[in-house]
Amino acid sequence: MTDEPAELVEEREEEADDSYALPRKAVAQILYAVDTNDRDQLIELMEPLHAADIADMLEQINAFDRMRLIKLYDREFDGEILSELDEAIREEVIGILRPEVLAEAVREMDSDDVVDLLEDLEEEQQEAILEVLEDADRVAVEQSLTYPEYSAGRLMQREVVMAPEHWNVGEAIDYLRNTEDLPEQFYHVILVDPKLRPVANVTLGRLMSSRREVLLGSIAEDTFHIIPVTRPESEVAYAFNQYHLISAPVVDENDRLVGVITIDDAMAVLDDEHEEDILRLAGVGEESRLSDSILETTKLRFPWLAVNLLTAVLASLVIAQFEAAITQVVALAVLMPIVASMGGNAGTQSLTVAVRALATKDLTGSNVWRVIRREAFVGLVNGVAFAVIMALVGFFWFGSPQLGAVIAAAMIINLVVAGLAGIMIPVILEKAGVDPALASGAFVTTVTDVVGFFAFLGLAVVVLL
Amino acid sequence: MTDEPAELVEEREEEADDSYALPRKAVAQILYAVDTNDRDQLIELMEPLHAADIADMLEQINAFDRMRLIKLYDREFDGEILSELDEAIREEVIGILRPEVLAEAVREMDSDDVVDLLEDLEEEQQEAILEVLEDADRVAVEQSLTYPEYSAGRLMQREVVMAPEHWNVGEAIDYLRNTEDLPEQFYHVILVDPKLRPVANVTLGRLMSSRREVLLGSIAEDTFHIIPVTRPESEVAYAFNQYHLISAPVVDENDRLVGVITIDDAMAVLDDEHEEDILRLAGVGEESRLSDSILETTKLRFPWLAVNLLTAVLASLVIAQFEAAITQVVALAVLMPIVASMGGNAGTQSLTVAVRALATKDLTGSNVWRVIRREAFVGLVNGVAFAVIMALVGFFWFGSPQLGAVIAAAMIINLVVAGLAGIMIPVILEKAGVDPALASGAFVTTVTDVVGFFAFLGLAVVVLL
Repeated sequence: MTDEPAELVEEREEEADDSYALPRKAVAQILYAVDTNDRDQLIELMEPLHAADIADMLEQINAFDRMRLIKLYDREFDGEILSELDEAIREEVIGILRPEVLAEAVREMDSDDVVDLLEDLEEEQQEAILEVLEDADRVAVEQSLTYPEYSAGRLMQREVVMAPEHWNVGEAIDYLRNTEDLPEQFYHVILVDPKLRPVANVTLGRLMSSRREVLLGSIAEDTFHIIPVTRPESEVAYAFNQYHLISAPVVDENDRLVGVITIDDAMAVLDDEHEEDILRLAGVGEESRLSDSILETTKLRFPWLAVNLLTAVLASLVIAQFEAAITQVVALAVLMPIVASMGGNAGTQSLTVAVRALATKDLTGSNVWRVIRREAFVGLVNGVAFAVIMALVGFFWFGSPQLGAVIAAAMIINLVVAGLAGIMIPVILEKAGVDPALASGAFVTTVTDVVGFFAFLGLAVVVLL
Repeated sequence: MTDEPAELVEEREEEADDSYALPRKAVAQILYAVDTNDRDQLIELMEPLHAADIADMLEQINAFDRMRLIKLYDREFDGEILSELDEAIREEVIGILRPEVLAEAVREMDSDDVVDLLEDLEEEQQEAILEVLEDADRVAVEQSLTYPEYSAGRLMQREVVMAPEHWNVGEAIDYLRNTEDLPEQFYHVILVDPKLRPVANVTLGRLMSSRREVLLGSIAEDTFHIIPVTRPESEVAYAFNQYHLISAPVVDENDRLVGVITIDDAMAVLDDEHEEDILRLAGVGEESRLSDSILETTKLRFPWLAVNLLTAVLASLVIAQFEAAITQVVALAVLMPIVASMGGNAGTQSLTVAVRALATKDLTGSNVWRVIRREAFVGLVNGVAFAVIMALVGFFWFGSPQLGAVIAAAMIINLVVAGLAGIMIPVILEKAGVDPALASGAFVTTVTDVVGFFAFLGLAVVVLL
């Protein structure tokens, strides 16, 4: 199913909303320029927009408008927009751009952005882009691509500003002022030893405000963090966030300086990691994007639903063992989903806290047993509270104190089990090297469903029949 | 319940794990120094640790060890550790520190960190800390506290580096080199007009590498973003992430420069916002911390479980309408949780994607109808797939093609409804000014439970009886 431009007329008539990043009105005007094939107007309207906002807009409009807009915008399309686009839309856009426009856009990009662009593309598109790069850039990009995906080596920029550790402020300032091609953005001068191993960072602000004869080593920053080139980018983001780093040198296996990672790249990784965690916890493929097609979205969500179906069928098998009891006391069928549902929710609470605490390294060997004990107690306290409530509901609704006692007992059992499963399953998965955000949910729900139905129906058989 | 030191012996015997931020062994050695009251050893062991790691360790050990460690560490305890601590533990630690130690720690802190520290404290503790500050610092801190909580005004630092817009590079460099008290960290010189309104940013790198006679205005950065002092910090974090800002000037209601926000603060906010979203989606109070006590944790989780109980009871009321049918065909009781469970999971998938897309401003008036249509179609496609599977399960398990048809039809209905509810409920809540991460889950589950049971049991009555 493709989107039809007709719907846009309807959308444009709706109210504008100030809270949107891009006002509806601006998007409507841009689409009007596209409709009327008015290139000058389109360029004028797009001119004040940041590349990130243009990329967002391209993701939000439908495929037909996107194609027409890009063809009309043509040579104005620059590399930064490409960098900002979601993967799925980016591939589509690359297919639409004329080869000359694409070549120019890519040549404008920084080498780390080209790497980021290339790693998501199919081989054919990769080669087409590598071909248009200048020789030096191509070598740099190809070198970066030899580092593992999602490693510091892919994230770093290769342009570094360094100085021998024995220099003084005056020498550093003279060097900087006489160097032609400093990077656009840099925050530190990295001090290196004779073997090119980084030993300290000096901030530009500190350099600016110190007297010329002061030794660089004496004004180095307290916090200095060196990143091996193979370190996973998630660990890099953690280090930036934990130690409030602004930039950090990257070293190869011989501890030699090969690049630098800056906080803006680390922030983007942190954002992605969080997004991934949230989507994984909800059983949505972590690559899920609003701009994905119906088919892609369905494919991403199907596996998790299939796992959930297995869980649900397992729970049904438990219920099936108690068919006779249900036939005798139909109130059991009415009340049984309550126990399972409460357990599922309590389990999700515990597991979410556990998954986050593992991700932020707040849950460690030093406190895991105390946290497990806490979760069990929290389950017990909440279990008792809801047991009292449900005992009353059971009694007043169905007039049976025994039924009230059964559901109360089942509630306590299931909430304690939910607390324990919610904390222990993520911890065990993490130890086993499986991402707890990805797999914990299914396991925890299975436990709380099975225990919930079994405790309630099993106790009912013992007490009521 | 308080933790007993006895458990630590047991913990220490467990295996160390390399992936932890703080090695178990280091923590064990530190606690041994505390046990043996060996202050010199404690100071030596703590010396190489970053304040953020010390704070993490203090959060992970139990309250008794924490108290003994802090008392033994005494004067070595510095302000940065306080800044890094979680709110709950921080209050506890402030209560343990001797007044002189606390005073010294606070005096060492930057003014924005003091603000951050104070805003979470109770009034009595606030005043005690304000008293120990020097006059100038106290005025700055009190002024910051007049801005709304979670606003740019609370986040910014007041120390700014600015220059008149008509200056050239030489004048700026001379000014910087002759200024005594430049901030420790700064990345831009902010150009201002005669009314102190910021007009552009020049990076220090650019300043360093330009000739002295070049006008500052001609080497200003392309991307320049001004932040009003009352803007919510979540919007500030969004702007930094979206536009790759490193620092941004903050202005008052007259557009005059009053401070500057740097990317490290924005990164911390982004991290908090994500954390809040994840915890809210899971129905855990957003202030939830591993270091919370059992009672606090129980109180935070109870409300969400209570809402879930209402939802579950509502679903039970639906089931109760079909008691007669269940008594006749007990297979209905066995299969009915499957339909509700699948709907709940599909709804959670849609709603998580919607909540994230709203947070990142990717879901706007320009694409909301298309996304709603997509979610309905995804629900339909997955619904049909699982309908086929469940029809077969229903048929082979219970030998009834009618039962298979009923569960298949109910599955399709519920997954389409789940997709629609999952997207529309967050969008409506956002429009109504309610945080969709907080409230969507309960509404969506209510819809999928009620529709799931009603569709399945209702169709069963029509087809089977």
